[in-house]
Amino acid sequence: MSDRILMGHGSGGRMMHELISSCFAPAFGIEGLGDAAVLDLKKKGRLALSTDSYVVSPLFFPGGNIGELAVNGTVNDLAMAGAEPLYLTSGFIIEEGMPLSDLQRIIESMAQAAFNAGVKIVAGDTKVVDKGKGDGLFINTAGVGVIPEGVDLSPSHISEGDIIIISGDMGRHGMAVMSERSGLSFAPPVLSDTAALNGLTALMIKAAGGSLRAMRDPTRGGVATTLKEFALESGLAMEMDEDELPVTPGVKGACDLLGLDPLFVANEGLLLAVVSGDVSEYILKEMRAHTLGAGARAIGRVMPGPEGKVLLRTSIGGTRLVDMLEGGQLPRIC
Amino acid sequence: MSDRILMGHGSGGRMMHELISSCFAPAFGIEGLGDAAVLDLKKKGRLALSTDSYVVSPLFFPGGNIGELAVNGTVNDLAMAGAEPLYLTSGFIIEEGMPLSDLQRIIESMAQAAFNAGVKIVAGDTKVVDKGKGDGLFINTAGVGVIPEGVDLSPSHISEGDIIIISGDMGRHGMAVMSERSGLSFAPPVLSDTAALNGLTALMIKAAGGSLRAMRDPTRGGVATTLKEFALESGLAMEMDEDELPVTPGVKGACDLLGLDPLFVANEGLLLAVVSGDVSEYILKEMRAHTLGAGARAIGRVMPGPEGKVLLRTSIGGTRLVDMLEGGQLPRIC
Repeated sequence: MSDRILMGHGSGGRMMHELISSCFAPAFGIEGLGDAAVLDLKKKGRLALSTDSYVVSPLFFPGGNIGELAVNGTVNDLAMAGAEPLYLTSGFIIEEGMPLSDLQRIIESMAQAAFNAGVKIVAGDTKVVDKGKGDGLFINTAGVGVIPEGVDLSPSHISEGDIIIISGDMGRHGMAVMSERSGLSFAPPVLSDTAALNGLTALMIKAAGGSLRAMRDPTRGGVATTLKEFALESGLAMEMDEDELPVTPGVKGACDLLGLDPLFVANEGLLLAVVSGDVSEYILKEMRAHTLGAGARAIGRVMPGPEGKVLLRTSIGGTRLVDMLEGGQLPRIC
Repeated sequence: MSDRILMGHGSGGRMMHELISSCFAPAFGIEGLGDAAVLDLKKKGRLALSTDSYVVSPLFFPGGNIGELAVNGTVNDLAMAGAEPLYLTSGFIIEEGMPLSDLQRIIESMAQAAFNAGVKIVAGDTKVVDKGKGDGLFINTAGVGVIPEGVDLSPSHISEGDIIIISGDMGRHGMAVMSERSGLSFAPPVLSDTAALNGLTALMIKAAGGSLRAMRDPTRGGVATTLKEFALESGLAMEMDEDELPVTPGVKGACDLLGLDPLFVANEGLLLAVVSGDVSEYILKEMRAHTLGAGARAIGRVMPGPEGKVLLRTSIGGTRLVDMLEGGQLPRIC
């Protein structure tokens, strides 16, 4: 077999069948890709369905690669809806000439990430595009999960006086990708936070019940953009305390160097939650017992207005409006 | 708003939110893209899950475009498993500089195709890659369907003496794309056969019950490759009669001109089914009452051996082995 991907690997013939049976099928523990997977859904509840395409550049970055990102990202989208993620599909768009060894490393990372998250990759598809018409590899994953009865999360449930919680520190994924892309290296290196959050969210749902209003993972657009979405969708204002926003010195230094604001930098293993004020301390205590919630803290509160706005109470006692960026600071980050 | 896609449209900020709320959300009848869709699955049965990425070049071809292909293709994958397709997700990887009007036309085609197929597009995602790192647009769709109780299709159920049925004539999609790509035009033009087959398959399942062993749509690799898969997965031989293989004069002429064999050319609205011999005539009669099955006919039979082989009984009375191609005749056809 060639050590690089050729156009023939995408054309439906023997080369494609061999690539699938030698690379994808054993890693994912399935017989083949392409047909519909047939599943006995034993869990009861509403279905959650999500998809994301991953176009991160470069494919490998400090702390991860596109494969685990593609698994964790879609697992997290389901988890944020309150679902227990169960099954993933994966679609690969491979640029002709991609080293087969890179593809294999990425597939193995996906299999490991799926195992860690407790989900199964049950169906997939490979396409090959001509050299110069892609960029190494793009991966799409779609995911199916089940939302247990009684769980109903939505920004529309957010109420005045609720507390805004973050599960850890901001900006690691974006800065890890940027440092690789710009050739900067930091000591110690900034590593992506890519991780599956479904263990943490299950624990939060159990602890909080209906006091948990909404959760979302601040990926593209960062914490600021997610809070803006909460503000718009709830018709309330989200107020953050600048002094409470957790950023590691490494991420802060990298952001300073590149002129970026960590509030807008992508995360891939972080969540924001809005919870009712009376249970926030209890939920934080529960979250801190989980590896991915060890740094959980309250960063602000929900105010009646100005409607749809995000406010930042600064260290020196002022207040400023935080809005979405027009475009984005960092392209191709996930 | 710019009339072309810019990098900022993929970066999570206001431009992306505007693109989604102005283009995708109204066409698909959903509030936004990005979050997990929450669905009440009222139908009972096993779940079918499928995905495909679409990288067809060019994006527009006689008889269709990448958008309807992306809907019909995934609907068909579910239908071939015996499922009633219900929900789709869609992931867009857009090359910077793509005309917004092209994107809009494609989205409208998707919405129309979903309506025609009776499915809902419930979740999605948009990514933008730098000019020269993509090729206009790639679309991934994943689909969820429900397989009614009692329906159990699989090539492993294929038995000696079963009849191989085709729903119509071969090779139209591949030749439509090739004619566009090569600048050839035929009179009358060869149009893609892209269509959702779930109406036809529902009718076949109702008519045939357990006498319907397996169905598959011969896309990449064409009829020959699908029959080879049936042969390998059943451990039996598939024998075709050359004189029974339906090809329009237009497709035959185009194939002759380009040196292609219609047996290996992709179809996007065609199915192959294997049914028990005693009901084949009845099923064919039922199929012919459906627009997409008007040309249905038996093209061969299942033989005990040689195991895993596909045989073609030629017009002049000989028999030749038909195998998968090594790579493929036609790249980027779907």
